[in-house]
Amino acid sequence: EDMKKQQSVKTSDPYSSDPERHPVLRVNNLKPFNAEPPPEILSDSYITPSAFFFKRNHLPVPQVDPASYRLHVEGLPGGTLTLTLEELKTRFPKHTVTATLQCAGNRRSEMNKVKLVKGLNWGIAAISNATWGGAKLRDVLLAAGYGPEVAQWARHVQFEGLDKDVTGTAYGSSIPINKAASEEGDVLLAYEMNGEELPADHGFPIRVVVPGTVGARNVKWLGRIVVSAQESSSHWQQNDYKGFSPGTDWDTVDFRSAPAIQELPVQSAITSPQDGAALDRSADSVTVKGYAVSGGGREVIRVDVSLDGGRTWQVARLRSADQPDAPDLPPLGRAWAWKLWEVTAPLPPEAQELEIVCKAVDNSYNVQPDTVSPIWNLRGVLSNAWHRVKVKVREDHGAE
Amino acid sequence: EDMKKQQSVKTSDPYSSDPERHPVLRVNNLKPFNAEPPPEILSDSYITPSAFFFKRNHLPVPQVDPASYRLHVEGLPGGTLTLTLEELKTRFPKHTVTATLQCAGNRRSEMNKVKLVKGLNWGIAAISNATWGGAKLRDVLLAAGYGPEVAQWARHVQFEGLDKDVTGTAYGSSIPINKAASEEGDVLLAYEMNGEELPADHGFPIRVVVPGTVGARNVKWLGRIVVSAQESSSHWQQNDYKGFSPGTDWDTVDFRSAPAIQELPVQSAITSPQDGAALDRSADSVTVKGYAVSGGGREVIRVDVSLDGGRTWQVARLRSADQPDAPDLPPLGRAWAWKLWEVTAPLPPEAQELEIVCKAVDNSYNVQPDTVSPIWNLRGVLSNAWHRVKVKVREDHGAE
Ligand SMILES: [Mo]
Ligand SMILES: [Mo]
Repeated sequence: EDMKKQQSVKTSDPYSSDPERHPVLRVNNLKPFNAEPPPEILSDSYITPSAFFFKRNHLPVPQVDPASYRLHVEGLPGGTLTLTLEELKTRFPKHTVTATLQCAGNRRSEMNKVKLVKGLNWGIAAISNATWGGAKLRDVLLAAGYGPEVAQWARHVQFEGLDKDVTGTAYGSSIPINKAASEEGDVLLAYEMNGEELPADHGFPIRVVVPGTVGARNVKWLGRIVVSAQESSSHWQQNDYKGFSPGTDWDTVDFRSAPAIQELPVQSAITSPQDGAALDRSADSVTVKGYAVSGGGREVIRVDVSLDGGRTWQVARLRSADQPDAPDLPPLGRAWAWKLWEVTAPLPPEAQELEIVCKAVDNSYNVQPDTVSPIWNLRGVLSNAWHRVKVKVREDHGAE
Repeated sequence: EDMKKQQSVKTSDPYSSDPERHPVLRVNNLKPFNAEPPPEILSDSYITPSAFFFKRNHLPVPQVDPASYRLHVEGLPGGTLTLTLEELKTRFPKHTVTATLQCAGNRRSEMNKVKLVKGLNWGIAAISNATWGGAKLRDVLLAAGYGPEVAQWARHVQFEGLDKDVTGTAYGSSIPINKAASEEGDVLLAYEMNGEELPADHGFPIRVVVPGTVGARNVKWLGRIVVSAQESSSHWQQNDYKGFSPGTDWDTVDFRSAPAIQELPVQSAITSPQDGAALDRSADSVTVKGYAVSGGGREVIRVDVSLDGGRTWQVARLRSADQPDAPDLPPLGRAWAWKLWEVTAPLPPEAQELEIVCKAVDNSYNVQPDTVSPIWNLRGVLSNAWHRVKVKVREDHGAE
């Protein structure tokens, strides 16, 4: 009897058709699949290879037949516009945008150390950077009848995925109309990731890429777009992915009192060395590497690094490409991609342990907070305090 | 001889025609005039009366004859457009915008306590909120020939004041073209402040009001507007009003390495009680008041207040008007005015001293840093750490 039940559960496992994943990924949850790469992979290349890109699924990966796939655009005066994949690729100019996606729960594990929160225990690598190719959402909205009259009443663009829970409820979210419809918002209906077809884990055949906006709004396996006066009524828009005061607990929380996370605050972390690493005294210097990014297209303009827990600081070198000759700066307000940074500094002569710290500044001169506790929140989102790693300095007796 | 020189200096004192000021203002510098109101005045009314509005002049107040005043708009294909004050008032629709202005040096005194910086020792009140009336800069630019062709090459709009130093150099600054020319940027050429003619100290007859942008770009006594591919070459744009790492000193600073401050980071401060105040034990509760604002039109969504130095927090009540029934929310991205906030909390029974702390969160979920030292910079700008005041709790023996 028990045997039978188990088998029936197994054969009807909605996750059984999930794709294969790279074994180097650190799995936070298997079903739905949630995993991040080892941090040092992030600073290995400016563009994160798709196989290593962090994966954050809320539900089973839907199997979508590209030939029968349809995208429905609703809520506009002309009625529903239905597009095939081929039409999305041929009726609209293809745009490419390099954009960093970050999970709202990135670095949640640091909040868990303060006090347990509800959510997956992400390290610092629930963030990755890719080049996305696709149609501009703006172009598709215009083709579907968006215009000045609609702008009078429309406030949000809702997205619905083809991924569904056991009750048939799809993943969903929304973004403000001014982001969705603006020329400079660079929102894509992406069918390519790093020059190839979107992988199944990243939304094949179409995902929304909303540059500068929290991962949760970048809906994968996109099935429906609705222009509306209202936000998405989805659980993930209304009762999740919001920030609260550290004093707010599950008994007192009112999800209506906080806005849905859209733009993320300024963020940075150290990818190398890692916490607990040992440096050799003979090395004389230490090289510290990491990433930094901000939300809303605000460019990171500086990263400060400390080897002494935040007492003294030096300025890291930033780069916006793998080539040392940096490309043109992004247009103001459209810095969608992270900076990788690096600093090489002399090993403090007496130190036996270093507390390495980083903090970034963006072009609105917002900074990261010093500590985790005062930004702790019951869902463990928006964890952007200074990143700290402790490393030992090992005396090198081999040369004596 | 000395006597003569002194007298000649006196009679040629360029500040001799500066206007009268309200005696309640706290003067940080007399010539040029720089003064802030007592902090509690800020939370007395949502709109700061003009007489109490902080005053930050870089140079003597110029005396401008409104009849002969001319505004020159340059750099556009049609050549210079010259406008009289009357033309500015009649040729363009009048718009009103409630916007908070804040000096880049607001709260500099807290940085001075860490290590001396260069600049006026502002308290927490180099910030005020007013309703400005005037023509939209966008409308004037369009009338002067701004259009899609100009947008191809134009990147900045430069402003020049009629206030000049002894060498004849005028105060100047610039803002990005996308702020200046956008419908939603709400940049005004203001001729009214709180429903009256602009006062002399605030730029009579015309000042630029750049909502969401540091005070220094809100050029007063405006004489010239230049559309350009370049930023203003002014001292105040190039070699001042920029942020640096705490490790950067006057020997190592490279002003080209940092962008000119435009949008300000999230900010808040406690206006009441003030540092050193004494509360009566018999009062049972304490009411804390203050202001909070962010840059770039980002709305303050929450203010956390602590009575125990940041260990525990409660959420303050925010208001956006003097009336308790709040008006409609500002459109997304156009929250130009501060929130006043207030929280009433029980006096902790045993405490003899309270360290009251506030910190604000904006709708990109950026927060204020915990402490001053790590954001210290040689010019003492961008001072937005948690605001802390210490108050004593006085045992009340009168009732025994
Ligand atoms: Mo997420
Ligand atoms: Mo200022």
